[in-house]
Amino acid sequence: MGSLPLDASLRPLDPEAFSGESRAVVNFLAEYYCDVEKYPSPGFFAYYPFNASAAGFAGEMLSVGLNVVPFVWAASPAAAELETIVVDWMGKLIGLPQRLLFSGGGGGVLQGSTCEAVVCTLAAARDRALAKLGHENIMKLVVYASDQTHVTIQKGARLVGIPPSNFRVIQTSASSGYGLTADAIRAAVDRHVANGLVPLYLCATVGTTGLGAVDPVRELGEEAQRHGMWLHVDAAYAGSAAICPEFEGYLDGAELADSHEAMNPHKWFLTNMDCCCLWVASPATFTAALSTDPEYLKNVGTNSTGKPAAIDYKDWQISLTRRFRAIKLWVVLRRYGAIGLRGYIHRHVAAAKRFERMVAEDERFEVVVPRKFLLVCFRLRERIAGDDTVDDLNRELLAAVNSSGRAFITHFVVDGKFVIRLAVAGAMTEMQHVMDAWALLQGKAEEVLRRHQL
Amino acid sequence: MGSLPLDASLRPLDPEAFSGESRAVVNFLAEYYCDVEKYPSPGFFAYYPFNASAAGFAGEMLSVGLNVVPFVWAASPAAAELETIVVDWMGKLIGLPQRLLFSGGGGGVLQGSTCEAVVCTLAAARDRALAKLGHENIMKLVVYASDQTHVTIQKGARLVGIPPSNFRVIQTSASSGYGLTADAIRAAVDRHVANGLVPLYLCATVGTTGLGAVDPVRELGEEAQRHGMWLHVDAAYAGSAAICPEFEGYLDGAELADSHEAMNPHKWFLTNMDCCCLWVASPATFTAALSTDPEYLKNVGTNSTGKPAAIDYKDWQISLTRRFRAIKLWVVLRRYGAIGLRGYIHRHVAAAKRFERMVAEDERFEVVVPRKFLLVCFRLRERIAGDDTVDDLNRELLAAVNSSGRAFITHFVVDGKFVIRLAVAGAMTEMQHVMDAWALLQGKAEEVLRRHQL
Repeated sequence: MGSLPLDASLRPLDPEAFSGESRAVVNFLAEYYCDVEKYPSPGFFAYYPFNASAAGFAGEMLSVGLNVVPFVWAASPAAAELETIVVDWMGKLIGLPQRLLFSGGGGGVLQGSTCEAVVCTLAAARDRALAKLGHENIMKLVVYASDQTHVTIQKGARLVGIPPSNFRVIQTSASSGYGLTADAIRAAVDRHVANGLVPLYLCATVGTTGLGAVDPVRELGEEAQRHGMWLHVDAAYAGSAAICPEFEGYLDGAELADSHEAMNPHKWFLTNMDCCCLWVASPATFTAALSTDPEYLKNVGTNSTGKPAAIDYKDWQISLTRRFRAIKLWVVLRRYGAIGLRGYIHRHVAAAKRFERMVAEDERFEVVVPRKFLLVCFRLRERIAGDDTVDDLNRELLAAVNSSGRAFITHFVVDGKFVIRLAVAGAMTEMQHVMDAWALLQGKAEEVLRRHQL
Repeated sequence: MGSLPLDASLRPLDPEAFSGESRAVVNFLAEYYCDVEKYPSPGFFAYYPFNASAAGFAGEMLSVGLNVVPFVWAASPAAAELETIVVDWMGKLIGLPQRLLFSGGGGGVLQGSTCEAVVCTLAAARDRALAKLGHENIMKLVVYASDQTHVTIQKGARLVGIPPSNFRVIQTSASSGYGLTADAIRAAVDRHVANGLVPLYLCATVGTTGLGAVDPVRELGEEAQRHGMWLHVDAAYAGSAAICPEFEGYLDGAELADSHEAMNPHKWFLTNMDCCCLWVASPATFTAALSTDPEYLKNVGTNSTGKPAAIDYKDWQISLTRRFRAIKLWVVLRRYGAIGLRGYIHRHVAAAKRFERMVAEDERFEVVVPRKFLLVCFRLRERIAGDDTVDDLNRELLAAVNSSGRAFITHFVVDGKFVIRLAVAGAMTEMQHVMDAWALLQGKAEEVLRRHQL
């Protein structure tokens, strides 16, 4: 067996070692959370922060510790079946229409990220179209998004082989709050169809990354139906807010969607990375693009007849292997409950609302886009100097804030303007941290303006 | 703010709650591992088992608990940089050539699964080819694999838009131990080139899923170079064995690879799900197919000039978001060390070797393919009855074993024969469990043969 010493003593899951080493890590992490105010963590207002919670952590420990892999039903029937239950719960909680739930003929899956979900839906849309048109017509397929749509749609379209020039970006403007209008889509589609192209896929976003803008799902859905396009609704961040009745309306029209990546619980739903809910109206169409059936994976689930076959979730995603994410989301839902989770969403929205008001009340600043959820987009107002100079001042302000180490905030550019975006979604972020960030911004703004004698 | 009660008291990362709840889960899992012999766990010989260990679990806890997301360098510089260090360590440990390591101009990434890695490399190969040929020639691109190659290559080729009819499967046979020969590839490529097709991508597997077969990497690499094909080496399972000098030779020729998914530490390297090492020879070619640069992600890493820019790992994978997998692999490597890990590999190989010998010594059974690593492929020998009946007997034997609940073993079909495959790779699987499985198989075989009066 080679010349190396054989370490027969290694027992990698010895319960005593497992217990001792795991407790040491728990202690280390608990101390970290205890001292977290000494670090910049709750001052993380950049991008969209990812969530964590004691329940999310406990759920992840169960997933990792039990080490089950529900890729085919037979490999872990309980894990596969819990997933179908939990995604239906989640869909009901955000008010999705029946047709996207298992109980209504659709169904959902827990994937790792929005990007994965997008690639899967694009592949399903492509294969649905090419089954009629023939594969050679892949050159004609057009994917639509707005200039505010997340870049993942462009990356996904390219990954599934859509010619890069057929990814068409529709301009939005302040007049629609940077939402994609049905009129704009219709004009583009008509032009492309006249040129022999085939409209394939339209992404409607509820809560864009840059500005938190909302596309009108129902109007876009009707437009998509008119042209036989796949409508994908991306509410990765803001979808969590739909558990609160006052935000549910933003998902109105969801019954027109072919697929709905309605939320990432790892973003704003206290579920540690990674967990992304994707629902589809037609599981058969969806899995047609993703299923494989090699001999070594045939199992009783696959072969069952009569009743609907058990779900082999490997056919609902890119990868064969997969985590037991259902247990994590289950623990979060059971531990905090709908009321606890609504309170959590409300707390962030209230803090963002207050921040927006403070910005609006300070004449040196302006709010660039009205806030809808947790994101406030603002900047130092144009003063004496021209626009270029205002952008420079805002860049300088943001750099000063970030280099203080007391907050981390990122930016966006819209209509050529440099905009500061503050996202209130960290699991540990409370009103006081937002107040501190505002005081920090005000102080640094004063320094910057003084430096420029403004 | 709506009509629901605002639960301002929810502190999702309260250190006391975190600590108490996490300890409860640790206790639960430690008890589970204590009692594991009461469950069928260490009798899991199906598929290729996934690994777990106290160190892998601790590493995952750190990744999840610290909740950092190294998708762009700026979001977590330490996490991004640790990843480049750890993948280089791992590459050196399995003896990869310099040109696949960062230290030699290539580089690596930790992804979630083989399937992700395959999709990324296929997209990179496709875009490299279409940059010269024009996108309309996507219809001409051909992807090659053997009839033993994992189905993920076929799924990946389809996902990136290669016409399904251009995925070409080359037959293997017992004479080459079910390895793909250079002669067979050459014959197919010559025929396709004569027909105006363009050879794109060739997958060489070290340790196939069904039979543990090995393709000759060097010969296939030379063939790929001759036709300008992308050579991908898939050693997802058996790559771990290359940390032992006696197995390193199977990766000979790796310097001819464009990409090398040389191992999944979550398979046979004591690293809990998920962790897949992928190395590429040309990071620039690879990331050209995967990079995005939206305004909201521009950061100091992205913009750095002079020295090589810091790595934004979002451009090395499908998804934008990603886990801090480097800390997990780092803990495993530091906790068990090369010697401990070699001992672990040796232990499984020794048990598989012993099992193979016992099968060979029982005249009722035959070994179907000589074992190379941890997988033994065997079956009840043909006796009086014809081949069909022998397959039925083996099917009956496998069903009897699995329904006992004392072991879980899966099957494969090669040259029309039903084969039982026993994979020794569970983290808790020791010699005794393999002996027990053999006794169980012998007992059930006796029952089956008696039932058929053989």
